[in-house]
Amino acid sequence: MQELFKKLNIEPQDMTLYERAFSHSSYANENRFMQSYERLEFLGDAIVDFVVAEYLYAHFREDEGEMTKVRASYVCENALYEYSMAMGLNHYLKLGHGELYKENVQNKAIIADIFESFMAAIYLDLGFDVVRRVVLSIVTPYIQDQVTFFSDYKSALQEAVQTDKKSVEYILIREDGPSHKKIFTVEVRVEGIVYGQGVASSKKEAEQNAAKEALEKLAN
Amino acid sequence: MQELFKKLNIEPQDMTLYERAFSHSSYANENRFMQSYERLEFLGDAIVDFVVAEYLYAHFREDEGEMTKVRASYVCENALYEYSMAMGLNHYLKLGHGELYKENVQNKAIIADIFESFMAAIYLDLGFDVVRRVVLSIVTPYIQDQVTFFSDYKSALQEAVQTDKKSVEYILIREDGPSHKKIFTVEVRVEGIVYGQGVASSKKEAEQNAAKEALEKLAN
Repeated sequence: MQELFKKLNIEPQDMTLYERAFSHSSYANENRFMQSYERLEFLGDAIVDFVVAEYLYAHFREDEGEMTKVRASYVCENALYEYSMAMGLNHYLKLGHGELYKENVQNKAIIADIFESFMAAIYLDLGFDVVRRVVLSIVTPYIQDQVTFFSDYKSALQEAVQTDKKSVEYILIREDGPSHKKIFTVEVRVEGIVYGQGVASSKKEAEQNAAKEALEKLAN
Repeated sequence: MQELFKKLNIEPQDMTLYERAFSHSSYANENRFMQSYERLEFLGDAIVDFVVAEYLYAHFREDEGEMTKVRASYVCENALYEYSMAMGLNHYLKLGHGELYKENVQNKAIIADIFESFMAAIYLDLGFDVVRRVVLSIVTPYIQDQVTFFSDYKSALQEAVQTDKKSVEYILIREDGPSHKKIFTVEVRVEGIVYGQGVASSKKEAEQNAAKEALEKLAN
């Protein structure tokens, strides 16, 4: 984890906080005396919301309705997942044996969670000014580049093609693994042409991932 | 406003922030160059959420689901309204002429809003440590006394009498004022007995106020 701290330019004091921040409940349950990241995630959620709100208040001239919408985009699960992956937080995640298989398909919700729990650990360990600097260093490039995150990519894709009255179709093209640990691969076609593919441990999430890829293709 | 600052033990620097915090859009619209409190409210909302989250994280041993529920109670509109009224913030509120008549019945949503905008003004003027101290000095007594706020008093009342299978009835007993500025008085009866009365500029809000009074009576 030293590499991560170095990249973020922070000097951790209390390592137990960071260990907790990356411990999923499935892992904590298998290890006595270990706490999971969930309470930290509750705190981190409020920290990230506040830091992003403050940034928008200072840098956007829009009214509160618009700021609320913009903030929702940068703190939604898909955004948090993106931040975690960009920082490589997924490499430090500790899952129980029962959850481990899902690592191939990246459990999105969990990876999004640990961005928040990690920020809470930084806050409790090093204070508000440090966590604010870290959150802003990660989030503001996305805001400045106007990267848009959707909480629901399927709806966003539907909306994007609506004006052209084009059809959108999701097709399950593969199912791998035993019945209780299935991995689904879904393809999305716009007017019959493949625009994206998604892989996940549920059909619903695989469709979301496919829609995300299609949206990126449509944007270029 | 000096009295208010004294009570809160703060020394304001930038008075324009506090003026803005109490200026409803109906007032700002009537005064050129005046900004309304709404952008401050957006920021204040995030500050209050964070401060209460941090308090619960440090003082409650419950899991994140329970903390989320508890926090929702202490940051809901009814709670914010209670804090504003307890501090007397309603006395500083500036409304446009069109909104002024509602003062008799206390426009709940607006009075709840200015708690948040006022906290944002304190934050921008005096920093996080000061606003945290102020928020905690107001909110924690309610948490420690286990005062429960409901975002919906009618549902809460319905639930409270449900086990006894008692009937709840709301009766409009008065309508005052001209048609576009009506004031409604509603009575709530539990098994035919009057348990509360509510007054407001809408029937819905009058019913909520009546239900709140009934809940307080039931709790004693």
